[in-house]
Amino acid sequence: MTRTETQVTLIQIDNYGPWTVAPSPKREPDLQTLQSRLYADLSQLVAHHDGYVFFTRFDNMIAVTNGIDLAGHRRIQDAVSNRYPVTVSLGVATGASPREAVGEATANLQAAGSAQDGERTEILRGDPLCEEGAVQIAHFDVNDATSQYTDELNAFEVFRHIDRGYSALLEYMYDAHDSLSFFIGGDNVISVTAGLDRPAFDAAIDHVEETAGIELKVGVGHDLRAGDAGMAAKEALERCRERGTRVEVGASESAGRA
Amino acid sequence: MTRTETQVTLIQIDNYGPWTVAPSPKREPDLQTLQSRLYADLSQLVAHHDGYVFFTRFDNMIAVTNGIDLAGHRRIQDAVSNRYPVTVSLGVATGASPREAVGEATANLQAAGSAQDGERTEILRGDPLCEEGAVQIAHFDVNDATSQYTDELNAFEVFRHIDRGYSALLEYMYDAHDSLSFFIGGDNVISVTAGLDRPAFDAAIDHVEETAGIELKVGVGHDLRAGDAGMAAKEALERCRERGTRVEVGASESAGRA
Amino acid sequence: MTRTETQVTLIQIDNYGPWTVAPSPKREPDLQTLQSRLYADLSQLVAHHDGYVFFTRFDNMIAVTNGIDLAGHRRIQDAVSNRYPVTVSLGVATGASPREAVGEATANLQAAGSAQDGERTEILRGDPLCEEGAVQIAHFDVNDATSQYTDELNAFEVFRHIDRGYSALLEYMYDAHDSLSFFIGGDNVISVTAGLDRPAFDAAIDHVEETAGIELKVGVGHDLRAGDAGMAAKEALERCRERGTRVEVGASESAGRA
Amino acid sequence: MTRTETQVTLIQIDNYGPWTVAPSPKREPDLQTLQSRLYADLSQLVAHHDGYVFFTRFDNMIAVTNGIDLAGHRRIQDAVSNRYPVTVSLGVATGASPREAVGEATANLQAAGSAQDGERTEILRGDPLCEEGAVQIAHFDVNDATSQYTDELNAFEVFRHIDRGYSALLEYMYDAHDSLSFFIGGDNVISVTAGLDRPAFDAAIDHVEETAGIELKVGVGHDLRAGDAGMAAKEALERCRERGTRVEVGASESAGRA
Ligand SMILES: Nc1nc2c(ncn2[C@@H]2O[C@H](COP(=O)(O)OP(=O)(O)OP(=O)(O)O)[C@@H](O)[C@H]2O)c(=O)[nH]1
Ligand SMILES: Nc1nc2c(ncn2[C@@H]2O[C@H](COP(=O)(O)OP(=O)(O)OP(=O)(O)O)[C@@H](O)[C@H]2O)c(=O)[nH]1
Ligand SMILES: Nc1nc2c(ncn2[C@@H]2O[C@H](COP(=O)(O)OP(=O)(O)OP(=O)(O)O)[C@@H](O)[C@H]2O)c(=O)[nH]1
Ligand SMILES: Nc1nc2c(ncn2[C@@H]2O[C@H](COP(=O)(O)OP(=O)(O)OP(=O)(O)O)[C@@H](O)[C@H]2O)c(=O)[nH]1
Ligand SMILES: [Ca+2]
Ligand SMILES: [Ca+2]
Ligand SMILES: [Ca+2]
Ligand SMILES: [Ca+2]
Repeated sequence: MTRTETQVTLIQIDNYGPWTVAPSPKREPDLQTLQSRLYADLSQLVAHHDGYVFFTRFDNMIAVTNGIDLAGHRRIQDAVSNRYPVTVSLGVATGASPREAVGEATANLQAAGSAQDGERTEILRGDPLCEEGAVQIAHFDVNDATSQYTDELNAFEVFRHIDRGYSALLEYMYDAHDSLSFFIGGDNVISVTAGLDRPAFDAAIDHVEETAGIELKVGVGHDLRAGDAGMAAKEALERCRERGTRVEVGASESAGRA
Repeated sequence: MTRTETQVTLIQIDNYGPWTVAPSPKREPDLQTLQSRLYADLSQLVAHHDGYVFFTRFDNMIAVTNGIDLAGHRRIQDAVSNRYPVTVSLGVATGASPREAVGEATANLQAAGSAQDGERTEILRGDPLCEEGAVQIAHFDVNDATSQYTDELNAFEVFRHIDRGYSALLEYMYDAHDSLSFFIGGDNVISVTAGLDRPAFDAAIDHVEETAGIELKVGVGHDLRAGDAGMAAKEALERCRERGTRVEVGASESAGRA
Repeated sequence: MTRTETQVTLIQIDNYGPWTVAPSPKREPDLQTLQSRLYADLSQLVAHHDGYVFFTRFDNMIAVTNGIDLAGHRRIQDAVSNRYPVTVSLGVATGASPREAVGEATANLQAAGSAQDGERTEILRGDPLCEEGAVQIAHFDVNDATSQYTDELNAFEVFRHIDRGYSALLEYMYDAHDSLSFFIGGDNVISVTAGLDRPAFDAAIDHVEETAGIELKVGVGHDLRAGDAGMAAKEALERCRERGTRVEVGASESAGRA
Repeated sequence: MTRTETQVTLIQIDNYGPWTVAPSPKREPDLQTLQSRLYADLSQLVAHHDGYVFFTRFDNMIAVTNGIDLAGHRRIQDAVSNRYPVTVSLGVATGASPREAVGEATANLQAAGSAQDGERTEILRGDPLCEEGAVQIAHFDVNDATSQYTDELNAFEVFRHIDRGYSALLEYMYDAHDSLSFFIGGDNVISVTAGLDRPAFDAAIDHVEETAGIELKVGVGHDLRAGDAGMAAKEALERCRERGTRVEVGASESAGRA
C-alpha cells in the first residue's frame, strides 16, 4: 500500500495584471484567448508527465504533479516562454494533504517576491517528491443534468445551479477534508483528496444535496500519478451509471489502498 | 439615445456528454484541451463581429452578439465544424433584459430537442435584432487582489475568496437586475446589464462587501456592440484606479445613454 | 471593369534567427510549433479582412491584402505581439503586377533596417491602396494525384514529383508573368497573377507538363478581395472537374474583367 | 557502436480531398488553419516521444519515429481524432536507409486501400523497431542568408533562391544517399540520412553550390532518437558558426558512430 502524498504545483503568470493594461487596456477577447490557449497547452504539457492542471483563476493555476521533477518543471516553464508573450513562475511542494501541499507551494513562490514584481520572473522553487507517493482523485458529476437542468431551465440558471453545487462542494471538501475541488466544465467537479473512504464521499454528497439541492455521484481513483488516478476515477464514475450507485471507488481503492 | 436591447446567443456543444465517454472515457486533459481551445476560437470568431463570449460551463457558453445576424452565426457554426470533432447548436434571442434574452435563446434551442439527442445537431434558431439596440457591460475587479490575497494566502484560498465574491455578485445581479455575470479569470467579473445607473452599481458593491467580504470597483460601458461597450468599461475601470473611485461609467454613459 | 492592382504585405518575424538559438539552440519541434501556429493565426487574422497569407519561408510570409488599410495592419501586428513571444514587421505596397508589389513591400521593410537588427521591431511601412483595385487568383491542382501518385509511389517520391511541378510553375509564372506562386499543401498551388487570360494559363500548364511531367488543371478568380477571388478560383476548379476541362475562369472573368 | 536503422511513419489524412470540397469548397484560409494546426499538434505529440515530423505535403506528413511503438502511434492517432474533424492513418516501417523505410511505410498504408477510400480510416500498420537502431540527422543552413538575401532581394526572390537550393539538395541526397530532405522554414533544411561521413556532406554542399549557387553549412547528429540526433545536429551547426567551418559532426559522430 502506497502512502498518499500529493505534489502540487502553483503556476503563476508573471506580472500579468500590468501586462493586461500596457500600454493601454487590451481587448478582453484577446486576453481570454491567451488565457485559454495557455491553459490548453499546460494541460497537454503536464499530461505528458501524467499530471493534471486546473484552470482555477487562469492567472494562477493549480496542478497535481506527482512524478514530475524539477527538470520536468523547467521544461514546462521553457515551453511557455517559447510560445507565449508572458512567462510563468512555478512553486512546488508535497504534503500529506492537498491543502498542505498547495500552502507550501504558494509559500515557495511568495518567498521569491510579489506576483506583480516585474523583476520576479520564471521562478522555480520547491522540492518535488523523491520517494513515490500516491494521489487520490474524485470525479463528481451531477445526476441527470441534461434532463433536469440543461433541457429545462434557461442556460444561465442552469449554470447558477451548477455553480451553487460546486461552491458547496468546494467549501465542504476544503474545510472537512483539506481537499481541493475544481469545476472542470459541464456538470463535473474534480476533487484532489487524500485517504478518503466511501462514507466520507457519501457525506459530501449528502451535504451538497442539503445545502444546494444538487444530486451528485462520484467515482474515486488512487494511483501513483494524477493521470492514472483520474482515469480510474472516470471509470469508477461509469460504474455508478451502470449500477445506479452514487459512490464507486476504483478497483485498487476497494483493496483499501487509499 | 439608443435603447438597450441585449442579443444573447447560447452556444451548446451537440451531444457532448456521450462523446466524452465514447467508446470509453476520454482522458480529462484531452477534454480540457478541446474545451479551452474551442472557447479560445469562439472568443476570436465572435470578437471579429464585435461580440463577447463567456466560457460559462464550456459545453454551454453564453455570448452577447448584438450586430451579428443569422449569416454571421452560420459562419461561426461552420468554422467550428471545420475545425473540431464536435459541432455546436446556436439559439439566439434579444430582450430588454439579459435574463429575458438568455431565456428566449435557450428556449429556441430546447424547442429543437434535447442537448443529448444525437439527431439534433447544428441547430440555428432565433431572431437576431433588426433595429439597433445597445449593450451595457460592467467590468468588476477586486481591489488590491495582489497584495491582499495573491501574495498573502495560499493559492486555493485566494481562489475561494474570489469565488465567494463572484457567487455573491452573480446571485445579486441576477435577482436584483436580471443581469448575467461571468468570472473571466484573475479577480475579474463581467456583468451584462441593462440600463443600470451608478447607485445600482454602488449597491451591488456594498452587497458583495457585506456578504463575502470582498471589495470591488467597477467600470461601466454602453455601446452598440459588446466589444465597444466592454472596452469602454475597461477604460472606465482604469479611471477608477487613477481617481481612487469605485464606480466609473463610460463617457457616453455619463451623458445618460444607458 | 476594375483594374487589377495587387496589394502585397511582407510579414517578417523580427530578429528571429538569433531568437532560435538564444540562449542555446531551441528544440526544432518547438520552433515548428511556433511557426505553424503563427501562420495559422495569421491566416485567420488576414482572412477576417478577406486577405490571403502564404507561409512561404515561415519567417517571411507573403500576403495579399487588398482592402486592408494601415489600421487593419496594425491590429494584426498587435494581435501577434499579444499572443507570441516574437513580434512581426510589416511592409505594404501595391503594384500593377504582384512582382512589383512584393518588390516595393520588401523595399519598404528593408529601408527600416536589417531583418536581424535587434532594434528594428514592429515596423509598419507602406501605402495601402486608396482606390479599389482587384486581385486575380489562380488555383492549380494536379490531375488524379491520388491514383497516379499517392496510392502508387512512396510518399517521398510523391512529394518530389509535386515539388518539381511546383518549382517549374513558380519559375515560369514569375519569369513570364511577374506572378507569385505558392505551394499550399496536397497537390495544390496558388498563383497570384494579374490580368492573365485563358491562353496564358494553357501555356503555363503545357510548360509544367513538358518540364516536370506533371499534369495540372486551374481555376481562376478575379475580385476586389483575395478571399472572394480565391473562392471564385476554387469554384472554377470544381467546374474543371465536372466538365473535364483544364482551365476555367470565374463567371466574372469570362465577362472579360481580368 | 549502434547501427543506423531509421524508423519512418507516414501520416496521411483520411479521405481529405473530398472533405475539402464537401458540401462545397471550403475557404482556403480555413484549410490552411486546419493543416498548420494539425501539423503543430503532431510536432508536439511526436516530440513527446522524441521523434520529428515534417510537414511535407501537409495531407501526407513524414515522421522519424525511432523508439515509438504501436501503442504510442495509437495514442497519437487517437489524439488527432479527439481534436480534429479529420482522422489520420499511419504506416510504419524501418529500414537501413530512410528511403527504404519510407517505401515500406507507404506500402503498408497503400495495402490497406486508397487515400481517398472513404471506408479506409484510422489504419495503423507496420512493425516498429524492436531492437534499438540509431538515427542520423543533418541540419543544413544557408550562409549569411540575412545579409545576402533577406536584406537585399525582394522577398519572393529570396524564397525562390532558397527553394532552388532546397530542391537541388533534395534531389541529390535522395539519389546519391537514399536520404529524405525537408525544408523547415527560414533558410533551413533537415536531411534524414544514414551512415554518411564528412566527405559525403562536403560533396553535397559542393553540389548545391554548383547547381543552385547557394552556399550551405551543415551540422550532423547521430543518436537513438530523432530528437537527440537533431539537437546534436543543431549544436554542431553552432560550431560551424563559431569555427567558420562548413561541416561539423556531433561529438559522438566524430567517434565514428555513424
Ligand atoms: N470535462 C468533462 N465534462 C464531462 C464529462 N462527462 C460529461 N461531461 C459534461 O457533462 C455534461 C452532461 O453530461 P452527462 O453527465 O453525461 O449527462 P447527464 O444528463 O448529467 O447524465 P448522467 O450524468 O448520466 O446522469 C456534458 O455536456 C459535458 O459537458 C467528462 O468526463 N469531463
Ligand atoms: N481577464 C482579465 N484579467 C485581468 C485584467 N486585468 C487584471 N486581470 C487579472 O487580475 C489579476 C490582478 O491584477 P490587478 O487587478 O491589476 O491587480 P490588483 O492587485 O488587484 O490591483 P488593483 O486592481 O489595481 O487594485 C491579474 O493577475 C489578472 O489575472 C483584465 O483586463 N482582464
Ligand atoms: N489546401 C488545399 N488542399 C486541397 C484542396 N483540395 C484538395 N486538396 C489536397 O489535394 C489532395 C488531393 O486531392 P484531390 O485533388 O481532390 O484528388 P486527386 O486525386 O488529385 O483528384 P482530382 O484533382 O479530382 O483529379 C488532398 O489530399 C488535399 O491535400 C484545397 O482546396 N485546398
Ligand atoms: N526552423 C528553424 N529556422 C531557423 C533556425 N535557425 C535559423 N532559422 C531561420 O533562418 C533564418 C536566418 O537565420 P540565420 O541562419 O541565423 O541567419 P544568417 O543570416 O543566415 O546567418 P548565418 O547562418 O549565421 O550565416 C531565420 O530567420 C530563421 O527563419 C532553426 O534552428 N530552425
Ligand atoms: Ca451528469
Ligand atoms: Ca484588481
Ligand atoms: Ca488533384
Ligand atoms: Ca543561415
